[in-house]
Amino acid sequence: MTRIALDASGGDYAPERPVAGALDALRQLPDSCHIVLVGPRDGIEAELAQQDGPTPDRLSIVHAPEIIGMGEKPLAAIRSKRQSSIVVGLTLHQQGEVDAFISAGNTGAMMVASRFVLGLHDGVERPAIGTVLPTVTDPVLLLDAGANVDCNARELYGFAQLGSVYARDVFDRDRPKVGLLNIGEEEEKGNTVAKEAYALLREQPHVTFVGNVEGGDVLQGVCDVVVCDGFVGNIVLKFYESAGRTFADLLQREFPADVLKTEGAARAFEFLDYSTYGGAPLLGVKGVSIICHGRSSPRAFTNAIRVAKHAADNHLSDHIHDEFVQGGAAA
Amino acid sequence: MTRIALDASGGDYAPERPVAGALDALRQLPDSCHIVLVGPRDGIEAELAQQDGPTPDRLSIVHAPEIIGMGEKPLAAIRSKRQSSIVVGLTLHQQGEVDAFISAGNTGAMMVASRFVLGLHDGVERPAIGTVLPTVTDPVLLLDAGANVDCNARELYGFAQLGSVYARDVFDRDRPKVGLLNIGEEEEKGNTVAKEAYALLREQPHVTFVGNVEGGDVLQGVCDVVVCDGFVGNIVLKFYESAGRTFADLLQREFPADVLKTEGAARAFEFLDYSTYGGAPLLGVKGVSIICHGRSSPRAFTNAIRVAKHAADNHLSDHIHDEFVQGGAAA
Repeated sequence: MTRIALDASGGDYAPERPVAGALDALRQLPDSCHIVLVGPRDGIEAELAQQDGPTPDRLSIVHAPEIIGMGEKPLAAIRSKRQSSIVVGLTLHQQGEVDAFISAGNTGAMMVASRFVLGLHDGVERPAIGTVLPTVTDPVLLLDAGANVDCNARELYGFAQLGSVYARDVFDRDRPKVGLLNIGEEEEKGNTVAKEAYALLREQPHVTFVGNVEGGDVLQGVCDVVVCDGFVGNIVLKFYESAGRTFADLLQREFPADVLKTEGAARAFEFLDYSTYGGAPLLGVKGVSIICHGRSSPRAFTNAIRVAKHAADNHLSDHIHDEFVQGGAAA
Repeated sequence: MTRIALDASGGDYAPERPVAGALDALRQLPDSCHIVLVGPRDGIEAELAQQDGPTPDRLSIVHAPEIIGMGEKPLAAIRSKRQSSIVVGLTLHQQGEVDAFISAGNTGAMMVASRFVLGLHDGVERPAIGTVLPTVTDPVLLLDAGANVDCNARELYGFAQLGSVYARDVFDRDRPKVGLLNIGEEEEKGNTVAKEAYALLREQPHVTFVGNVEGGDVLQGVCDVVVCDGFVGNIVLKFYESAGRTFADLLQREFPADVLKTEGAARAFEFLDYSTYGGAPLLGVKGVSIICHGRSSPRAFTNAIRVAKHAADNHLSDHIHDEFVQGGAAA
């Protein structure tokens, strides 16, 4: 039985959407999954009472009365609010009561608390946020998407290791291809850190490095993992989300209403809505910690639960440990 | 009379597309515009002979027999090919024979030759490539889009000055708002260079600084100019182009053929096709030098000619000179 804890008070539409997503996940996933909703018990029970049918056996509640607001300073918030859903949920995970924790709450608080409560694997210098982008073929993992702003080449190599393990365990890809995000394909291109990272990645037999990839390659499915610092990654991610919304608005404006109701239109809008892609794993911590978008739909929570279960069942965290023991941190 | 020189042998579809774009521009623009096609005379004349109607009076040819290939090393190419369209066209501009030069040829060669042949304005440390992105309201100028990879705060301030003058002269905006591309709105966000640039921009009364903008703000029309280093700018630009193509393919796949033939669909595809937006100005050089995409459509060349004329008529280059004399390079 895989046990997944979900922050029921995290996100802009809590507890409705996380609760709805959890119930959908239980309907869709096999019996081997149990979901623990973490948050104020009364609010969760009231929300469950409004849903159709009886509350499933495979759902339980762990009471966490405090809520960390979206605008709160992460460190101060997790220190003062020990009974918040984020701290309680991660502590459950650290104690082995659950196999993963998911939250759409304050992103900074999730990062800081994951690091403090779960701890980092030996050899991991910096945890990284991975973000899954759809491509013309299979999804690609872009990391770091914002946890680290100034990175050196060694840290970028660490992201390549983390991303490779994730792509194996969660995307089920055998020898994940890793690209370095850069402004040209040639080895000598890029800023100082990119050039150093290229040299380092090329030397490491442990990661399947396919060389530089440009901004235009990310969505073309040329590799499984794209590595960059968190400054570039965060800008690309937010730009992508916004481009998807802008293009979706364009469709609404330029196509007639009946066309927008077709299945094709539904698929197009789904592709353009980044929030449907579930959560972003915080990689490098001991455990499975998944950060969801504040605007996540119920479907996004369902997807995040599915991803968390897959990561836990495939022993993602153990494999990250092994990777940093065997592959070592870069010299 | 404004005289615009256009590289007739630059780009993936030369001379057809530049020639077609030039003829369209002459039909659309007022009589005060003369176009000089630069390239191998025979090829240009053969192309003109295939067009409908007589060749307009306001079109002339300057022979430039050599062609710089897309894959050639820029510096070596411009040194050895003095009779290439890029060197000949820029020399015409430097000598005052034309008021602007446009090329869809080898981008690196255009950058290097513009700098060498035209020279930089006093006080400009680094020229920057500006790129015009459509937004939900009016277009925004993003710079630098790839001329400089490792930038310091002072150089980013220089880009803010260059972009402000361009937005005044070409976008016709009175007090252009400048945003710094970053990973959060707050002053303390970002990498080391971004924090320093924020402090520098805030102190300068000469630029209307509106603070940090995130990746998700770029397409929302919150400012007129977005400043970043050329590493980030190039990745965002190429990512954007590719996202547009990916989304256009998505429409082709998901909507029926008759819907794709409507005017609404045409507008959507036009919005998604970055190549329609004309050229990217190389700012900081003495003159008007515009770099077009290798895949530019005839319409993109027409637009680039329109932009070049507007920039020349509004004395963009003089105003950049004034800006760096009055506003000064940052301390």
